[in-house]
Amino acid sequence: MLTNVEHIGIAVRDIATSNELFTRLLNVAPYKSETVESENVTTSFFRVNQTKIELLEATSPDSPIAKFLEKKGEGIHHLAFEVDDIHAEMERLKKEGFILLNETPKRGADNKLVCFLHPKGTNGVLVELCQEIKE
Amino acid sequence: MLTNVEHIGIAVRDIATSNELFTRLLNVAPYKSETVESENVTTSFFRVNQTKIELLEATSPDSPIAKFLEKKGEGIHHLAFEVDDIHAEMERLKKEGFILLNETPKRGADNKLVCFLHPKGTNGVLVELCQEIKE
Repeated sequence: MLTNVEHIGIAVRDIATSNELFTRLLNVAPYKSETVESENVTTSFFRVNQTKIELLEATSPDSPIAKFLEKKGEGIHHLAFEVDDIHAEMERLKKEGFILLNETPKRGADNKLVCFLHPKGTNGVLVELCQEIKE
Repeated sequence: MLTNVEHIGIAVRDIATSNELFTRLLNVAPYKSETVESENVTTSFFRVNQTKIELLEATSPDSPIAKFLEKKGEGIHHLAFEVDDIHAEMERLKKEGFILLNETPKRGADNKLVCFLHPKGTNGVLVELCQEIKE
């Protein structure tokens, strides 16, 4: 079950400049920053009620964010839904014909297990499913 | 004050097909459909917790959605924040150097007063402010 719009991911060229810009826009400072080595991105997070705004900067030219910026420029990169059971949700969506970009959940930013759906099956929207890791 | 991510607007070519697709994705049916004559769009709304997913189809080639589809294809079109006082927020953001696309709030879908910010001042993100009209 999709229980919440967990975050909206925005690709930016320079996260320091964009942190300042989004602080002025949202009138709130980012509450954390994190580098995800496996994805070659640095992220920062802002909270607006129950949803986060996640800024993403590439840390290498191989990063999916570098490729997105090259092709489309800065802007919204993905839309992430919180799920209560990521394995069950991946199974359900696969049966519904959606294309999973990873066959098993992988570790993402913000202590989450994540799975992405191919945007060609979702009207051009890169959809992320995420579930908090309880340890 | 920005109090919530009110909705995410997604531009689609055929809203009937996309209603069916997003019903399967979100596992919930749209709860309403509305045509906004002034913007030349037909919309449908899905609810996920406190945030809505708004699908937008153009009703004429002059529609901003028709232009977006032509330029970028289907995908996320805008990100809307609920505000408690749209006039005060527009004033604040103007002072902060953001470019307002309308100088006074206009009537949008879903019984809202709305104002858009130019994406060139917000890292390519078309930001909407919206406030429910109390009558």
